[in-house]
Amino acid sequence: MANDTFLKACRREPADHTPIWLMRQAGRYMKEYMAIRKKHSFLEMCRTPEIACEVTLQPIEKFELDAAIIFADILLPLEGMGIEFEFTKNEGPVIHNPVRSRKAIDEVRIIEPAEDVPYLLEAIRLVKAELSGLKGKIPLIGFSAAPFTLASYIIEGGGSRNYLHTKGLMYGDTEYWHRLMSKITDVLTVYLKAQVDAGAETLQVFDSWVGCLGPDDYRNFALPYTKRLIDSVKGPVPVINFSTNTGTYLDLVKQAGGDVVGVDWKVRLDEAWETIGAEFAIQGNLDPVTLFGPVEHLKKRVKEILDMAAGRPGHIFNLGHGIILGTPVDNVKALVDFVHEYSIK
Amino acid sequence: MANDTFLKACRREPADHTPIWLMRQAGRYMKEYMAIRKKHSFLEMCRTPEIACEVTLQPIEKFELDAAIIFADILLPLEGMGIEFEFTKNEGPVIHNPVRSRKAIDEVRIIEPAEDVPYLLEAIRLVKAELSGLKGKIPLIGFSAAPFTLASYIIEGGGSRNYLHTKGLMYGDTEYWHRLMSKITDVLTVYLKAQVDAGAETLQVFDSWVGCLGPDDYRNFALPYTKRLIDSVKGPVPVINFSTNTGTYLDLVKQAGGDVVGVDWKVRLDEAWETIGAEFAIQGNLDPVTLFGPVEHLKKRVKEILDMAAGRPGHIFNLGHGIILGTPVDNVKALVDFVHEYSIK
Repeated sequence: MANDTFLKACRREPADHTPIWLMRQAGRYMKEYMAIRKKHSFLEMCRTPEIACEVTLQPIEKFELDAAIIFADILLPLEGMGIEFEFTKNEGPVIHNPVRSRKAIDEVRIIEPAEDVPYLLEAIRLVKAELSGLKGKIPLIGFSAAPFTLASYIIEGGGSRNYLHTKGLMYGDTEYWHRLMSKITDVLTVYLKAQVDAGAETLQVFDSWVGCLGPDDYRNFALPYTKRLIDSVKGPVPVINFSTNTGTYLDLVKQAGGDVVGVDWKVRLDEAWETIGAEFAIQGNLDPVTLFGPVEHLKKRVKEILDMAAGRPGHIFNLGHGIILGTPVDNVKALVDFVHEYSIK
Repeated sequence: MANDTFLKACRREPADHTPIWLMRQAGRYMKEYMAIRKKHSFLEMCRTPEIACEVTLQPIEKFELDAAIIFADILLPLEGMGIEFEFTKNEGPVIHNPVRSRKAIDEVRIIEPAEDVPYLLEAIRLVKAELSGLKGKIPLIGFSAAPFTLASYIIEGGGSRNYLHTKGLMYGDTEYWHRLMSKITDVLTVYLKAQVDAGAETLQVFDSWVGCLGPDDYRNFALPYTKRLIDSVKGPVPVINFSTNTGTYLDLVKQAGGDVVGVDWKVRLDEAWETIGAEFAIQGNLDPVTLFGPVEHLKKRVKEILDMAAGRPGHIFNLGHGIILGTPVDNVKALVDFVHEYSIK
């Protein structure tokens, strides 16, 4: 591999610069993406390996990123689980029959990746083949939701403000909460393992919605399943344990394990690293809004974050959350280049 | 005053039980409220002192709450500032000409409460008169937004996901960010002082949206103004410094001052109190979703919170955020009664 700084950072080994990739780096802020999106629905793009491959590589061709992440969606396992969903034009994902009853939970199926998400595995193989032909070959990241985040999607049926149904099940029928979480964990385990078998060299587990929970709920209702998932897939490849809005209980988040803990911009990187401990690499944590400029301010923030990491092996630069629609492409380039320029040994 | 447990807790004096009130306790979860709301718009209700008084007292008549909070909205100062807004049926507040330019910032006016919000001051006087006739007389809380939260409303023009315009001004025209925040602080100072003059016995400053900021942005762009506001109005009455989603930098939040720091459910009450220090009272911090039941689970959580407070003088029981639409009234009653029952000395 021509550029293995990302994998070195996952293992906390010294590298000649701080690696950077960006959550949702393949996406709507790029005109190359929108040109394809005009002709295909979002799910069509995910389900057509050639398109998923092309979109995965778009930001790699444009910016000097140190890792690629497969173009996919955390809801792709749903079809195989027997849960119908679609992406509506403006509202995002909608699940027509949210899983809220014991019967619905009993009916959730464990997926068979080769049958249920063959397009995703094929896309990973295509990307790997393409990347190996590129001069500055970089690793490919596969990913899934964490169990809580997938559970809350399928219980709420879409986005949520207060997570009433999710917490309703958790508090009201705790036995079936655990049954559902256990099933989802089994689903995500085979889903992630299949991505590694297809060629993914790192995995990221996204717990984007778990921040609605207080620390005790996180400990009792989410942590055991994230931990089981990460423990089951870790080893052959490094795992990034990412969540947002969990900065008040990173001491618990780290118990879910992984090689790298991803943090958002609500914490100082140095303090967060101290909390999670030297046995973890850390990923983060620029506020995505900073990418809107001005560039001088963006660079100031990048410097502050890199200074907090203090060149210690094991820092992967990233945003604290995904790139926002409308982010200026020139600023993305300025960010990637500046992280390399400022961190080079 | 027949029941001064709330004021005692604000001053960290021993009281015979832990006082409780609930953010948004006067509101849509009560059928008595909805009966009035059917006949009047939300703003009409705020602007009609007799209605605001009646609605303020509805939860006081129904539950054994230890404080009342005036029925009002944090956007009421806008009209006097020269900013037009309305509440749309589903989308909440909408400001038709968001304040985003230097010209618009220069045009923001400092309000004169007696002329611009006479209805609010009259409502406070009416509530005070009514309360003094009630057997278990309790104190009345006045309130405003914190400067950041009001600034972000008038810059975004309504609710926001990423606060692009707010942070855009902050990073892109820092001079005018500070100019706007200074003006808003002046507005809120006279607004809160007028509420005290009308009879409010405590003030709460709501920084509901400041949690979108990382710690350094909070320190540089929000904290100085919240501090100036609180310092300016504190003394004659206690001030509650409330914010949400700031649990990762409570060490900064406490620097904004006040007598009481309000915390959400993302932190453990005991750890939060240790962070802010013994010189502050603390308010919180039940997850509002817990009120949906089951009651046994609700009581378990209440116990945990009261046990973390350990009977130390200076704990005011509250939710971590406002009551959610649809909350069962019976559970509100169960909560209020149980807090008293479990905490009584």
